[in-house]
Amino acid sequence: MKIADVVQSADWKTEKHVPVIEAPENAKAGEKITVEVSVGKEIAHPNTTEHHIRWIKLYFKPEGGKFAFDLGGYEFPAHGESVEGANKGPAYSEPQVTAAVKLSASGTLIAESYCNIHGLWESSKEIKIG
Amino acid sequence: MKIADVVQSADWKTEKHVPVIEAPENAKAGEKITVEVSVGKEIAHPNTTEHHIRWIKLYFKPEGGKFAFDLGGYEFPAHGESVEGANKGPAYSEPQVTAAVKLSASGTLIAESYCNIHGLWESSKEIKIG
Amino acid sequence: MKIADVVQSADWKTEKHVPVIEAPENAKAGEKITVEVSVGKEIAHPNTTEHHIRWIKLYFKPEGGKFAFDLGGYEFPAHGESVEGANKGPAYSEPQVTAAVKLSASGTLIAESYCNIHGLWESSKEIKIG
Amino acid sequence: MKIADVVQSADWKTEKHVPVIEAPENAKAGEKITVEVSVGKEIAHPNTTEHHIRWIKLYFKPEGGKFAFDLGGYEFPAHGESVEGANKGPAYSEPQVTAAVKLSASGTLIAESYCNIHGLWESSKEIKIG
Repeated sequence: MKIADVVQSADWKTEKHVPVIEAPENAKAGEKITVEVSVGKEIAHPNTTEHHIRWIKLYFKPEGGKFAFDLGGYEFPAHGESVEGANKGPAYSEPQVTAAVKLSASGTLIAESYCNIHGLWESSKEIKIG
Repeated sequence: MKIADVVQSADWKTEKHVPVIEAPENAKAGEKITVEVSVGKEIAHPNTTEHHIRWIKLYFKPEGGKFAFDLGGYEFPAHGESVEGANKGPAYSEPQVTAAVKLSASGTLIAESYCNIHGLWESSKEIKIG
Repeated sequence: MKIADVVQSADWKTEKHVPVIEAPENAKAGEKITVEVSVGKEIAHPNTTEHHIRWIKLYFKPEGGKFAFDLGGYEFPAHGESVEGANKGPAYSEPQVTAAVKLSASGTLIAESYCNIHGLWESSKEIKIG
Repeated sequence: MKIADVVQSADWKTEKHVPVIEAPENAKAGEKITVEVSVGKEIAHPNTTEHHIRWIKLYFKPEGGKFAFDLGGYEFPAHGESVEGANKGPAYSEPQVTAAVKLSASGTLIAESYCNIHGLWESSKEIKIG
């Protein structure tokens, strides 16, 4: 079995689990750019103690390069858990993050997200540097 | 020895390692708010294969509550490493992240950051909910 | 507010949240040693969708050095969550890990653990190298 | 582009990057079992400031289930970095971890590892519960 067999993909406009990558289409080499990765942009995902998005990871595969780079890992740990019981706590982490990166090659951003009951999901977006 | 003995603090305007928390002073219960946590806001921190900020964590301690909640963990893994050698790679993760959270109690946001050679640093910021 | 205000400590034989560090008292410089860090060694901690240990971190503060090093971070994400409902899933991560490290200075190992409803806990253990 | 396009696989006896999973072939439902995941078991991987294994993740795909569960994430952050320069520091994290899990369904363990310059690698191992 491969990771490819368990990472799911779909259209994020109709499937709430799919991570959405928002980044410029073009940037200069070494310029600081912001990348937003989120889950539930069109259709909100539940955020409860029992069912939530736990993390998103962001990779970068340079064009012509053989290997992907880990650009960021973002944990969303708070989901209403509390000593008073599930969903009674004072804090919730939403599955949305804006990161900042510098790239010096064109390539592809790949986002991977994890729902604690519906598993792994992915999407990607190209970016041109130059 | 305690963690208190190794987590350092200072004024972020003069010490580049200190995490800076930018969040509203007031918010409504359950309202989605964004929190930016970053290192090097006033004085940039190096970002090289050998010396960089590796991660920031964000906690929330509700007023009157006994325990802190983990609100988010943000890894910054890319620092120019490459098969061509250190600092020749195409990708850098900057130590800056904007997260989204929902809170239903007043309390304190606490940020902790880690430099791979200068260790742990912290700062905090109060937030009023109501 | 400081992290010191929210990281709790106690005797692990009577308080189930305290991380336990098991490591050799002495080792040679550069020798691979194993370090076990766990929560609930004497009194088991609950492991349910609603209440569980989420992670343990391990730091090393060299004697005479100013800064602590991050030696390891260990996430325990599976706690019976499932599409069939809480605590009906097929997988649980237990809060226990054996890591391998190489040290070339005497110092102190510091473990920090996080319970999703009872917050942060810590303990430490000295190790002599030479 | 898909994650499948960037996660590499090979025989761990000849390719040093491939994660090795050591777990029992059979276990009872709910029994605590230990799973070792490591990189470099047959051929050691470099562990330097510039080139090292940064993390391993462990997933579980139950037989007949649609979704994979995140069983564990293990960060290896220390690689000799130091204020005295690269590879002069007192601490190294080795890419090896023994975790403890409880499973109540047969399925497949999937390990994913990340080398900071050679990217993502994977392997898997079946386990029978009953």
